[in-house]
Amino acid sequence: MQSIKSYINDNKDRFLNELIDLLKIPSISADSAYKSDVLKTADAIKISLEKAGCDHVEIYETEGYPIVYGEKIIDKNLPTILVYGHYDVQPPDPLDLWNSPPFDPIIQKTELHPEGAIFARGACDDKGQMYMHVKAMEYMTTNNELPCNVKFMIEGEEEVGSVNLAKFVKANREKLVNDVILISDTGMIAPDVPSITTGLRGLSYVEVEVTGPNRDLHSGLYGGAVANPINVLTKMIASLHDENNHITIPGFYDKVEELSDAERAEMAKAPFSLDAYKKSLDIDAVYGEAGYSTNERNSIRPTLDVNGIWGGYTGEGAKTVIASKAYAKISMRLVPHQEWEEITELFKTHFESIAPEGVKVKVTPHHGGQGYVTPIDSVGYKAASKAYEQTFGKTPIPQRSGGSIPIVSLFEEELKSKTILMGFGLDSDAIHSPNEHFGVWNYLKGIETIPWFYKYFTELSK
Amino acid sequence: MQSIKSYINDNKDRFLNELIDLLKIPSISADSAYKSDVLKTADAIKISLEKAGCDHVEIYETEGYPIVYGEKIIDKNLPTILVYGHYDVQPPDPLDLWNSPPFDPIIQKTELHPEGAIFARGACDDKGQMYMHVKAMEYMTTNNELPCNVKFMIEGEEEVGSVNLAKFVKANREKLVNDVILISDTGMIAPDVPSITTGLRGLSYVEVEVTGPNRDLHSGLYGGAVANPINVLTKMIASLHDENNHITIPGFYDKVEELSDAERAEMAKAPFSLDAYKKSLDIDAVYGEAGYSTNERNSIRPTLDVNGIWGGYTGEGAKTVIASKAYAKISMRLVPHQEWEEITELFKTHFESIAPEGVKVKVTPHHGGQGYVTPIDSVGYKAASKAYEQTFGKTPIPQRSGGSIPIVSLFEEELKSKTILMGFGLDSDAIHSPNEHFGVWNYLKGIETIPWFYKYFTELSK
Repeated sequence: MQSIKSYINDNKDRFLNELIDLLKIPSISADSAYKSDVLKTADAIKISLEKAGCDHVEIYETEGYPIVYGEKIIDKNLPTILVYGHYDVQPPDPLDLWNSPPFDPIIQKTELHPEGAIFARGACDDKGQMYMHVKAMEYMTTNNELPCNVKFMIEGEEEVGSVNLAKFVKANREKLVNDVILISDTGMIAPDVPSITTGLRGLSYVEVEVTGPNRDLHSGLYGGAVANPINVLTKMIASLHDENNHITIPGFYDKVEELSDAERAEMAKAPFSLDAYKKSLDIDAVYGEAGYSTNERNSIRPTLDVNGIWGGYTGEGAKTVIASKAYAKISMRLVPHQEWEEITELFKTHFESIAPEGVKVKVTPHHGGQGYVTPIDSVGYKAASKAYEQTFGKTPIPQRSGGSIPIVSLFEEELKSKTILMGFGLDSDAIHSPNEHFGVWNYLKGIETIPWFYKYFTELSK
Repeated sequence: MQSIKSYINDNKDRFLNELIDLLKIPSISADSAYKSDVLKTADAIKISLEKAGCDHVEIYETEGYPIVYGEKIIDKNLPTILVYGHYDVQPPDPLDLWNSPPFDPIIQKTELHPEGAIFARGACDDKGQMYMHVKAMEYMTTNNELPCNVKFMIEGEEEVGSVNLAKFVKANREKLVNDVILISDTGMIAPDVPSITTGLRGLSYVEVEVTGPNRDLHSGLYGGAVANPINVLTKMIASLHDENNHITIPGFYDKVEELSDAERAEMAKAPFSLDAYKKSLDIDAVYGEAGYSTNERNSIRPTLDVNGIWGGYTGEGAKTVIASKAYAKISMRLVPHQEWEEITELFKTHFESIAPEGVKVKVTPHHGGQGYVTPIDSVGYKAASKAYEQTFGKTPIPQRSGGSIPIVSLFEEELKSKTILMGFGLDSDAIHSPNEHFGVWNYLKGIETIPWFYKYFTELSK
């Protein structure tokens, strides 16, 4: 395994160029206009897995986008690692806030990435982090260093809820049998502070529609006399938080896991500068649920955020109209023990119940997933910790993330194995935002660290 | 004046075709993309005024869109009527709710318009109603029936606040001297219930912008820990009304004219069916300020409505983002004695004061205007009433409208004359909405009634 550093050095440019080619394909799963691009990306992943040394790589069709599956079984008596990743990306808009086109990757230096970062939608989430595994695999097969069996499962619908992956997993439990699941789709605290994500939040994502009059109306002739769907929607959304920023949906907190004071004290030890945080976001104050710190608010506490809102006239100038309809997309991040389907139902029931007379309300669930917590005394966690120690020279910090990878809890339920989240991105990499990027150093460090995980996991499993 | 009916009958098709040609030009003043079309419309109006018998028709340039002015002075000792109208139109969106293209006029029958209605943006507001005056003028000059002097002033910025018209009026008070101002830019109660608008609401129109973090953020990583500009905006807007739907801006109601019980009892006599109103809008209940009837809410009471709201991801599917910015367009309809500039300032001060920590708020005033009330014992009102009696066979009902024609109170201030609002549209004509239309019967009835106003106004002025 000692040759990994020189292998990376010899192949660095090729590793970058291959990723750049992958990033050029706009595989936006949320927008059906990009269907052929999403399918093209699946084909590209299949070829790259074959080149990396996988046997039996196949594209499995689903009712949505296909799953690319490949494996290399060297000895049935050795452990098996299942690598999961996704080849779809978030929509890039608002496009006008990108400094370079989202599907025309460029490498530029930044303060946090003095060796350069690749700017493109999907650079970090998740094409870049997924491709680290492909290149780590290439190293191990090419240099006869693969210490165990490996299975790759790369999907194209992570950004839209992994509905078809869930069906695929349930239908293929035997094929997917493994000893640990390895995912790089999270971040680490800082380049010099490696961390392993031990918790993820769940998600419930809904769209709401408020309909008032059957047509847009003149606000002079009807203003004040009929319910204005936009005014009503703002009132309904506003009422979802109380003055302490607690969510007001009845039953919402019933199953929330409350951490002990000791656990919260442990969390508070993670390096964090509130000033630097505010400065990086250009805000004068943070905001959130009373009684919790910033790091608690975005990891161990559930939230409700409007992700989009629209209605009425939004063009240049003024239009005096009362819109017939107003809309919002709302997501709730959930913590362990909150059942996402139950929360979606609680939201729907509550939101419909608070609609005033004069409007009709429709709530459409989009997708969701369970939260997840992984123990730090598992073989997988220990192997990951040792791998980071090897390549970073530091013991990684266990960290609860506010993000969601809804499929992770399903993996545990169906495949009975733990997931290890080895993320190499930074919070500032702007995933889901304009100017998403992934550090070149981080990308190569990921490729370097992964084979060590394979080695230590195999050794510790003996 | 007796030949007006046969003249209309002989020229009906031409009258319709000329209006249809005018409606084909998308003169959207709010959207600079249509600049050349707005200018083209001014040219068309100039030609039509010349053909109708006006002398000295000129296009007066302004800092925005031009004003078309023409006159016919037959005798300085006779009274002078100043006709005002506008050739610009509202934006047509949402386009997908139109049953036919907004600038490709078609005539179709409806329940309320058994003789057909012209469907197009501007059909009623105001190209159709303005053009009635041009055709009435044509009749009077062609048939030697013009009993007094007439001045036409047709602007292209009514839908965006008439800022440059106000300047023009102030600078040209001598040229515009008149005995009464005549406008058709309002409606009547029903084809068999003619009415004259005696009150208009004022307007203050603002745009608000809430900025949170300096970029769009991943709602998992930051959700719950930073102020979400959309959530904040909904809370701020929701707080602008209390539980009785009173507006909460301090000082907002200070100058509101309160009507006496007698006046309110008089208003309540106007024919109105709440069931028919609800049915026509397809709503199960009306909504508004506690303590007032529907007709009061949309005429004698001030209101605050969101006309547009936007922020975050509004495309297909789901995106888990916290937007950096959220926006809304908000208009307030004002009643007599409320000063629109003062109200705009009260709004701005209040809205900025309620912004929570963690966001920045910007309030941009768009435009506004004063409310207006005209007496029913003036010569102008009496002449209009007699004109309706002549052509409808019924005495018209005086009616306060909820709409605004901000320039009307400025006319009174600068030109010292009263405005008579003879509207021939119906509330159901969907002005400012998709499928705006104007009844063919109403259009022709307007052309028929206007010359009688000229006759009676001249007679009663002696």
